[in-house]
Amino acid sequence: MRFTQLFGRTLRERRADVESASHELLERACYVRQHAAGIYTYLTLGLKSLRRIEAIIRDEMNAAGAQEILMSMVHDADVWKRTGRYDSIDATLVRFKDRRGHDCVLGMTHEEIVASLAATELRSYRDVDVVVYQIQTKFRDEARSRGGLLRTREFLMKDAYSLHLTTDGLAKTYGDQASAYARIFRRLGLGDAAMVESSTGLMGGKQAHEFMCFLDVGEDTVAVCRSCGYAANIDVIGDAQNCTRCGASLEWKRGVEIGNIFQLGTRYTDALGVAVTDAHGTRRSVIMGSYGIGVSRLLACLVERFHDDRGIALTAATTAIDAHVLVLGRRDESLQTLASSLECESRERGIELLWDDRTDLSAGERLTDADLLGATIRVTLGRDTLADGTVELRERRSGRVHTVSADGAVDALFRLRKDILIGESSVC
Amino acid sequence: MRFTQLFGRTLRERRADVESASHELLERACYVRQHAAGIYTYLTLGLKSLRRIEAIIRDEMNAAGAQEILMSMVHDADVWKRTGRYDSIDATLVRFKDRRGHDCVLGMTHEEIVASLAATELRSYRDVDVVVYQIQTKFRDEARSRGGLLRTREFLMKDAYSLHLTTDGLAKTYGDQASAYARIFRRLGLGDAAMVESSTGLMGGKQAHEFMCFLDVGEDTVAVCRSCGYAANIDVIGDAQNCTRCGASLEWKRGVEIGNIFQLGTRYTDALGVAVTDAHGTRRSVIMGSYGIGVSRLLACLVERFHDDRGIALTAATTAIDAHVLVLGRRDESLQTLASSLECESRERGIELLWDDRTDLSAGERLTDADLLGATIRVTLGRDTLADGTVELRERRSGRVHTVSADGAVDALFRLRKDILIGESSVC
Repeated sequence: MRFTQLFGRTLRERRADVESASHELLERACYVRQHAAGIYTYLTLGLKSLRRIEAIIRDEMNAAGAQEILMSMVHDADVWKRTGRYDSIDATLVRFKDRRGHDCVLGMTHEEIVASLAATELRSYRDVDVVVYQIQTKFRDEARSRGGLLRTREFLMKDAYSLHLTTDGLAKTYGDQASAYARIFRRLGLGDAAMVESSTGLMGGKQAHEFMCFLDVGEDTVAVCRSCGYAANIDVIGDAQNCTRCGASLEWKRGVEIGNIFQLGTRYTDALGVAVTDAHGTRRSVIMGSYGIGVSRLLACLVERFHDDRGIALTAATTAIDAHVLVLGRRDESLQTLASSLECESRERGIELLWDDRTDLSAGERLTDADLLGATIRVTLGRDTLADGTVELRERRSGRVHTVSADGAVDALFRLRKDILIGESSVC
Repeated sequence: MRFTQLFGRTLRERRADVESASHELLERACYVRQHAAGIYTYLTLGLKSLRRIEAIIRDEMNAAGAQEILMSMVHDADVWKRTGRYDSIDATLVRFKDRRGHDCVLGMTHEEIVASLAATELRSYRDVDVVVYQIQTKFRDEARSRGGLLRTREFLMKDAYSLHLTTDGLAKTYGDQASAYARIFRRLGLGDAAMVESSTGLMGGKQAHEFMCFLDVGEDTVAVCRSCGYAANIDVIGDAQNCTRCGASLEWKRGVEIGNIFQLGTRYTDALGVAVTDAHGTRRSVIMGSYGIGVSRLLACLVERFHDDRGIALTAATTAIDAHVLVLGRRDESLQTLASSLECESRERGIELLWDDRTDLSAGERLTDADLLGATIRVTLGRDTLADGTVELRERRSGRVHTVSADGAVDALFRLRKDILIGESSVC
């Protein structure tokens, strides 16, 4: 891709009105644009990064035996009335009437929809222990949406739901999902995310955990025991001054909730009549679990974690751009030809390459933008390329520089990207 | 994937309440489930097919130089008020107030959002001739939503938008998009889709064309000239008894609109103040085009076109399942082991395989389901496999049968699928 064809402008000015580094950088680097309070457009680069995050989540969800489906954003309010949440949830749940006067809501979570599907699809004990998930747009009309992607009203969520006949079946899947979450966050570069006991909140149910990315910008407060490692949200642990498990002292940390898992029990299935026959022919209530990951929020957390004064510096697994090509020095036709051939070859090799082909900006301005956008590897063509046929590969995060021959530049890029991926995955 | 793990049941009974073959088959084959009038859930198989359709659309959009972004489903009504469509569009546009009392709408199309983005992102003639697109969920509260995916209220749409300084720039992109559409529909197996002149409808603008998939179940009426080939929607050609181009007689056909393209002019950009400086420094209005494809509707059209009495028979490029494994005859452990190894190897080779491992159904019931679900190749393990180590590969659409050795079954599957893909793409 060429910079002159990219939709959207990078912003040079630091902004005073932002609430977090990720908000500022995602806007300045032209990854996202705010449409309204808590509502964003993902521009080309933001979407590329988001899609890589989604791919990792899908991969681990599928490996854990979950199957992907896609439910609707508009729901018939009837099922929400039957579970009681139409009346119990505040204005966060958007309600409207359709043209026939029928009550509808915007999907803020999908327990009701999965349970109503299960009511017709499940019949016997053979049909349970199934997990479905989707990656889909949710709307929650939060009173306190913040700037940036940390707390939005419209957001992308991976939401999974499991259906069981026994509490053992639920417990097993709950554990499998927790393990999948740990793998997902590790692959994303957030391997220190902690699983903490949490309140069941508006989901109800018996047991719940949140996955916390520890960041000072976070809105949640988490207590972590200095001795046994038990962790809990302040909502659960309240004003206990010591660990409720072992009595040792607690460390308090700020975190952003990036995932949550719930053992829901039969709250939704009983309300919507979801029952199956067991092996003895007896009809029994189906037990349910649900499992969420804030996909677009993850992009914000990743930028919070992986940036520096100069801009975004995401890991190779989640970056929007693998390689960013700059031609510096005097304008030379052969360098343009080389950049163009790098662009074509990279596309064939599956390398996401951005060539800054703008001619109306200084070298300094373009170098500043390269750092801001945060490609994994900056590829510089210039005087050395003309003199001795070499190009410079510079790693964004480590700053390491490699000089390679222009002829083998794409091979070198491919190998270097792979090495960085391997190196980062062993650290994270 | 194993049938016993699939969420959802196939339905044996033919339904009396359906309005089209695709409605009946997509429900019976467990591809989709209706949630409410005109609102559907895509179950595992339906989503797999949808994702293959999306991949073909993305491939051709990217090849045509369009870049993917993702806009929101909830819009600030202000931009719709500024273009006048908040007041001019009927109840099809869902309006609601958020918790602060601010007017919002559900995105039924995104001209307003793209234009308001362009107002801040575009500055000069260097920034135009850009095309952005998304594949995103739309909601239109249609009074006459029908059963099945042909006309729904919530649907998946590929919507693209282009921004230009000159009408020549718009005309070029309009032509490029029309060519990309022709390639997309050909790859999908709908190569006979016709580009027909259409009215500009609620989009406004100067010129518009629809792409029609000729199907008797279609709601549109199209006139095609028997002599010069000119085609137009009845909305345009009205009660003309002869071709308005050459005077020859017209043939009338029924069709489903699967795509549309609009030369919008400056209707949206003027309303939202989108202007750039030209090469002489003069500020000029930006000219806009928009280009839609009904992604979920395409799934319905494909099933309308590719099915038989026994069930769904999609092309290899759009099928939900490449291979459907059945073990027939007496229960033999070695056949189960073979089926299981086919499942694993296929996954590694990127073949989407469904193994019907249900033990509570007769061979006849499972064969009926295999035809209903419509995998490209049915793989049968049975008596012959035990006797001489062969398995049967049967092509769903042609009925051709191949006997191959069990040892090389996955290789044979891989090659046969490729041959079918090539054969179908040369015909379509």
